[in-house]
Formats: sequence, C-alpha cells, structure tokens
Amino acid sequence: MDRELYRDDSLALHTDRYQLNMGEVYWADGVHNRKAVFEVYFRKMPFGNGYALFAGLERVVRFLQQFRFSDSDLAYLREEGYSEDYLDFLRNLRFTGTLRSVREGEIVFANEPIMRIEAPLIQCQLIETAILNIVNYQTLIATKASRIKQIIGEDDALEFGTRRAHEMDAAVWGARAAYIAGFAGTANVRAGKMFGIPIVGTHAHAMVQAYRDEYTAFKKYAGRHRNCVFLVDTYDTLRSGVPNAIRVAKEMADRIHFIGIRLDSGDLAYLSKKAREMLDAAGFPNAKIIASNDLDEHTILNLKAQGASIDVWGIGTRLITAYDQPALGAVYKMVAIEDESGKMTDTIKISSNPEKISTPGLKRVWRIINRKNGKAEGDYIALEHEDPRREERLKMFHPVHTHIMKYVTNFEARELLHTIFEDGKLVCELPKLNDIRRFAKENLDLLWDEYKRTLNPHEYPVDLSQACWDNKMAIIREVRAAIERRAE
Amino acid sequence: MDRELYRDDSLALHTDRYQLNMGEVYWADGVHNRKAVFEVYFRKMPFGNGYALFAGLERVVRFLQQFRFSDSDLAYLREEGYSEDYLDFLRNLRFTGTLRSVREGEIVFANEPIMRIEAPLIQCQLIETAILNIVNYQTLIATKASRIKQIIGEDDALEFGTRRAHEMDAAVWGARAAYIAGFAGTANVRAGKMFGIPIVGTHAHAMVQAYRDEYTAFKKYAGRHRNCVFLVDTYDTLRSGVPNAIRVAKEMADRIHFIGIRLDSGDLAYLSKKAREMLDAAGFPNAKIIASNDLDEHTILNLKAQGASIDVWGIGTRLITAYDQPALGAVYKMVAIEDESGKMTDTIKISSNPEKISTPGLKRVWRIINRKNGKAEGDYIALEHEDPRREERLKMFHPVHTHIMKYVTNFEARELLHTIFEDGKLVCELPKLNDIRRFAKENLDLLWDEYKRTLNPHEYPVDLSQACWDNKMAIIREVRAAIERRAE
Repeated sequence: MDRELYRDDSLALHTDRYQLNMGEVYWADGVHNRKAVFEVYFRKMPFGNGYALFAGLERVVRFLQQFRFSDSDLAYLREEGYSEDYLDFLRNLRFTGTLRSVREGEIVFANEPIMRIEAPLIQCQLIETAILNIVNYQTLIATKASRIKQIIGEDDALEFGTRRAHEMDAAVWGARAAYIAGFAGTANVRAGKMFGIPIVGTHAHAMVQAYRDEYTAFKKYAGRHRNCVFLVDTYDTLRSGVPNAIRVAKEMADRIHFIGIRLDSGDLAYLSKKAREMLDAAGFPNAKIIASNDLDEHTILNLKAQGASIDVWGIGTRLITAYDQPALGAVYKMVAIEDESGKMTDTIKISSNPEKISTPGLKRVWRIINRKNGKAEGDYIALEHEDPRREERLKMFHPVHTHIMKYVTNFEARELLHTIFEDGKLVCELPKLNDIRRFAKENLDLLWDEYKRTLNPHEYPVDLSQACWDNKMAIIREVRAAIERRAE
Repeated sequence: MDRELYRDDSLALHTDRYQLNMGEVYWADGVHNRKAVFEVYFRKMPFGNGYALFAGLERVVRFLQQFRFSDSDLAYLREEGYSEDYLDFLRNLRFTGTLRSVREGEIVFANEPIMRIEAPLIQCQLIETAILNIVNYQTLIATKASRIKQIIGEDDALEFGTRRAHEMDAAVWGARAAYIAGFAGTANVRAGKMFGIPIVGTHAHAMVQAYRDEYTAFKKYAGRHRNCVFLVDTYDTLRSGVPNAIRVAKEMADRIHFIGIRLDSGDLAYLSKKAREMLDAAGFPNAKIIASNDLDEHTILNLKAQGASIDVWGIGTRLITAYDQPALGAVYKMVAIEDESGKMTDTIKISSNPEKISTPGLKRVWRIINRKNGKAEGDYIALEHEDPRREERLKMFHPVHTHIMKYVTNFEARELLHTIFEDGKLVCELPKLNDIRRFAKENLDLLWDEYKRTLNPHEYPVDLSQACWDNKMAIIREVRAAIERRAE
C-alpha cells in the first residue's frame, strides 16, 4: 500500500456524478459552451447569528487553477461507461470562466450572492460540488469562531479541535477559518506550516502519567522549554496540580517564563477562581489561567457571568465541528443562460417553499454605508446594469415583507463582489492571511452592535432593488402561466 | 500559486504542538524510547445508539506507513525554534510500534479499547492526534449511516452529502464509511475512483433550467443515457414534473431504461403517494421513486409511518455531518509505561467525573457469544494474561453498578483486537471494502434487536474482568494516598 493506492491525483472528480452526466448531455447536444451564470448563496443565517463571515475563496481559487482531469480520472470514467469522445473533450477541459466573489473575511448575509460564476455551462456544472463543499465548511467555521470571539472579547482564543474535526482537511482549513475570525492560534502544527498561523501548546496529561507525578513532569518540561504552561488536572487540580505548578515555577523562577496553568476538566468557574487565589498568594499575579473542555460561546458567556477567572480560552470540538449547526447549506443556482440566439435569458427555480425560490438575473451586491456614522444601513442587491452610486436617495425594502422599507441618503455604496478570475485567468493578488484577518475585524466595525448579539440579533436588511424584485415577480408569473398552459 | 503553495508534503505535522513539545522533553531526558501503551476508546454511545460501527483503520494504516517528517516539515519546525539535535532525531523517526485494532466493520461499544498502540513513548504521542482525527470521524459516520440503514431496511440508501461535508476529506471518507454501513452507493465520483464504491446520479434542477422546460430536458437526457431518473420538482412536481417524466418515458420506451423519478422538495409523503398513483396509472408500476431533502433516520421513520411510497433514499447533510451529534469524542489514554528498571507499570488518569477515569493496564477485549443462539452476551475486558476461553462459567458484572451481574456458560469468546502492525511492520492484509461491508452486516446479526433500536435501545454489557476491576481500584487507592501524603 503506497501513496498511489487511492489514485488520488486530481480533485476534478470531487464532484457529484450527475454533473458529469448532465455534462455529457450538454456536450452531445452541442450546448455545453453556452454561457451560463450561477450564484452561490445560503438561505438561513447559521446559529441564528446576525452575520456570517465568508471564508474559502483561496481554496476555491487553487481548485480552479488546478482543475483538470488526470489520466487516472479519465481511466476511471472510461470504466464507468462514459464515451471516448466525451473523455477526449474532458481531457482538455480547463476553467476558462469568470469568477466574482466577496473577499475572504467579508461579512455576508442570507439570500445575497457571495460568489457569481460566469462560464461555459458544462464548466459551471462540473465545479459546483467542490465549490459548495469548500465554501460551506470554511464559512461555517469562520462564522462560529467569530461568534465565540464576540463573547471572548479581547482575550486570546485558541483553536484546539483537530482530534474531533471531520477528517484531516477540516482540521487545517477550520484552523485557518478560526484564525481569520480573530483566533490567536491553533494547536495543529500542519496548519501552522501551511498557512503561517501561530501554533500553540505545551503538554498533555500523558506527560504527567509518563513521569508519574506532576512535580517531576513539570520540572522536566521546565528544564527544556522556556515558555511554560502546566496542565494541572491529571489527578487533583487544587490539591496536587496547582501546588506542583507553583512549586516548579518558584524553583525555576530565573530560568523559565511561567506563562500559567491550564484547566481541562471539572467546574471551570470554581477551579479558576480558587487557582487564581493560589497563584496570586504565591506571587504570580501575572500567571494566566487557560481553560478548555467543550467550550463554546454559550458556556463561555455563563462562565464569565459567574466571574470565572480565565484569561485564555482553548476551543475544540464545538468550534471545529460547528457543533450546534454543523452545516451551512449554501446552494448554487443558475440565474441566467445564453439561449439559441446568443442572448442571455434569466432563469428561476420555483419551489412550494417561498424562501427557496431563486432570484433570477445577473446581479451585483452593494453594501450601503451611512456616511454620517460609518455604519452599514443594509445590503442592496441590484441588477447588473443598476448603479446605486448614481442615486441621491435609495429606496430599500424587505424582499418578502415589502411594506418594511426606508429611504437612505448620504450613503456610500460599496460593491461586494470582486473579479477574481476573468476568462480563466486569475486577475487579482490573493491577500495574505493576516490581511484577511484584519479585514474581517474592520468589517465587523461597520455593524451596529444589535447585529452582533449572539442570541436573537436584529435582522440586517438584505434588500432587492425595485428592478430586481419586479424582474423576479414577472418571471414567476411567466413560469406559472406556462405550467397552466401545458397542464390544460 | 501552485501545488506547492502550502508545502503540504507529509502528514507527520498533522498533530498538536504539545505532542512535539513533550517529545522534545522525553528525547532530551533520554526516556523517549521507553515502551508505552495507549488505548483508543470513546465514553458515550453516539446518537444514543445501541452500538457503534468502527471505521478508519485503513486510513490509520496508511498514515503510519507513510509517517515521516519531510524536509519542509523540519524546516518549519526549525523556524518554530526546535533544536537542531531534536530535528535530526525526528528526521529518521519511523513508526516501529505494534498496533492492535478492532477490524473495520466491527461493532463496538463505549468504554472498551478499540485500538491499542505499543510503541516508544515519543511515537505514541506524535501519532495520537491524527489517529483520533481519523477514527473519530469515520466511526461517527459509519455509525450514523448504520442507524439510518436500520430504519430503511432492505431498500437502497444513497450517500448525497459532499456539498455539505466538512471539506474534501470528509466527503470521500464519509462516503466510504456509509458504504461500509450498507449504503448502496455515493454521488461523489472521487470516492468511487478511490475506493471502488458504486457511484450514482442523473441530473439536477440546473439541467431543466438550462433547457427551460422539463420535457425538453428529460428528452435530451434520455437521448444520451440509457438509465433514466428524472428530477421532477424544478417547477411543480405533480402538475409539470411527473407528467413530463411519464411523457418522455412513454415516447422513449424502447430506447431507455426508465428507472423512475426523484423528489427533492415539498411534502415527500403526499407527493410520493400521488406520484406513485400517476406512475401506476401510466403503466409504470416498476418505476421507482427516489426521495431526498434533509433526510435522516427520524424523518424516514415518520415518512414510512405515513405510508410514503418511496423506494430509494438519498441522504445528504444529516449523514455526512452527523448532524445531531457531529463529534464522537474518542480519546487516547496511556494505560502503561516502562519504568526506570524496564518493568511495565500501569498508569491512570483520575478525574472528578467518575466516567472519565481511565482503566489501567494492558487489556484484551473479548466478545462473549452464546453458543445456543449465536447472539452476543456482552463484551468482556480482561487483563493481558487472562483468557476467558479457559473458563467454564464466566462472571460478567457492570463496571459501575457492580451488583448488576450474570454468569455465562456454553459461550465462545472471540477476541476483538487484532495485530495490525508488529514492531513497525504491517502483519495483516487489509480486507477489501466489500468484505468489510459484508463483515459489518454479519456482525449486526450477533446483536439482539433490542440493541439495534434507534431510540432508547437496551444497554449492551461491556464488563471488566474481576482482575481488571480490582487492579483499577487498587491503583485509584494508590494515587489518592500519594496525593494525601504530598498534601499533608
């Protein structure tokens, strides 16, 4: 069994079979190169949060740049019965389309396009599954991490979840998403190497077990590492762990930097307060208390409410799996396609659930920012040719409850979708991770606090322009009429 | 940006930083090659299920075989401040230990060792994180899939979750886990190529949108593919989708195999019954109805209770993310270590939560099977030297509520942990995937139905031998006494 066991030499097959089947129909019918436009969006805010934090673009860019069917991919598809001609076509297929996307670290909301792909129909289909797979997960974790960070505030949050992540990719890309959201570091060394994220960690219970008692273990650690955090709950936190940590910190005072202790079990509120007293009494008022153990925004809020004396928060399972809502549910819907005559026609997906009806047409998304206070008034989805920057007074209304409306003046309209690929060529430089992280922080400053509350936040307005709304209603009527005609 | 961007050329760094820090302490102290024994186990049954289905071994084997620090790994660790001598040591490090594991497809239970690693201490630590990352996810999904399959019964279940999976690894390894649990196939083409799982799928809403109406779209599909499943809910299931599917099935009757239709939204109970009537009336009594849309064991049970006419079940989000409990929580605990004199000593991790106290010592796990009815009486965890096959009459008692006990006679004791690696060498042939899948099915036959109920199943006995229990109690007393002495 070697590295080639799984013949996993490209990601082009990381797609659903139906994409390849539809592709074959289009190709056989000669419509595969018709220009199509698809949008990525999600319908509900994850965790009931007031905003989501977009992540995943860098991995999507890499996927599209490397998109090609390898020889072993084609050999497999041959076994599966695809025709030789079609395989020849696939062999030379590369991504030649245009991708517009919000930037990583941008705050985004339900029911607005966060990516827009314009490409030959067959390409749009073949790349769908991987794009959703990447964006759904990374945006979910960035959002969860941002929620947690809202509660933690300026204290450090550390990502500790690899052992509970959903296999290996989730561990490293989840660590990156958490860093974008403001986490200070990760325990995953590979994520550190791949992305340049600070890596953290000192020792586990096993080291205490290996040396049998805490005093010996801490002393050995201190003999080798200058920065020391001692894990104090292997046997008995207050009677054994903390006293031994203090003893070693005193004995090694001139040779180590005693950062503090870590609690990983028991009642963290009680133990942290008692440990704080012991550390202070021993002359270590600056020693930090690091806590971990199934923490998330809810438990942290409660611990803080009880005055827990915790300085650094290690977050594992509940962040890396997005425990309370482990899927984002972003979809990828066709909004327009070239017809026989070369003209673009808007398309729709109707559903008996009104919120599942897609919004047709090529669209742009604008963030409307009040110049007086620098805060966002809402997002404004307009058709391609519309430009709200030309408006003095912008009418914004709720796309479902249309009577909820307001007029905005003295605003800046900032476009959210940026051109990433144009005709298959990467046309922007991808930002460095630390710049993405800073951008995320700045973006959050645009939001009023009522949108940032972790429980029952106020709903941020995501509105359609009048023209966009009228276009959608007209197309719904057309489709309904056509069904009536055919049903008669 | 190319394939080397992330310098991701080995998985050796897929570990928590503290493992490398502890490793450096052990290495500097000269104890890194002391023999240690760690066990993998989980403490609570996932989803409240009566059993779990083990998966992940093949990926663990591959990880251990390829375990080595690459040049770029070492360069990164150098930047992070690890000493040159330690890096030299790591450069030549390979896995040289012994791995015992339950087989993939084995049913397993809380609080019994599912893997046992005997290796030099430093190796045990460095491989921990990746092993847990792999086993936690794959076992979780295999278990979730098995639960769903219990409710579906003999009908086909298909894995459709890639777009909602937690990044790419989860999609393919989750598809494999579902297949082990009895799913019939997956939509993920890459998983098909990597593992030989049957791949399934026909077309999406986008194809109907691309051709604008269902009749044209279905007809085009039928012109190219012999096996046809038409997706009927793009505009209006009963008034447009199903009639168009029937029309095309009739027109193309001699040229296609009309497998059936797929429903992906709306009330699946109502729509499936109506669609069944329409298909039957049109002369297609054998056409199947395939349903998808956030299904899991709970919704399927309800749909079946209402007499939904569904033949094939497509399961996405809720399977691939293990939506209702997205983490298994398996841990990796040291149970013994070599002391200064070369003697193995048992170790323990104490906790204020009694269920978190580990069970010391080298152990073996036996499944006790009643020879009269072929059913499992429970699992029996014994110390290394014990052999229940020598017993006529086996005393089995609950490890917490020790008064719950029984005597078993006329039994077969089947050992669950098999030697996979011995001194670093793979000593078994890994089974083929279809054999693992068959093995899983046979294993479930060992269980009484009361353990297989998806809600409130009976608790399967996982018992400690008297010697194993006595040893644990003695060590707890020893540790407590030592703490008392030091605290005085």
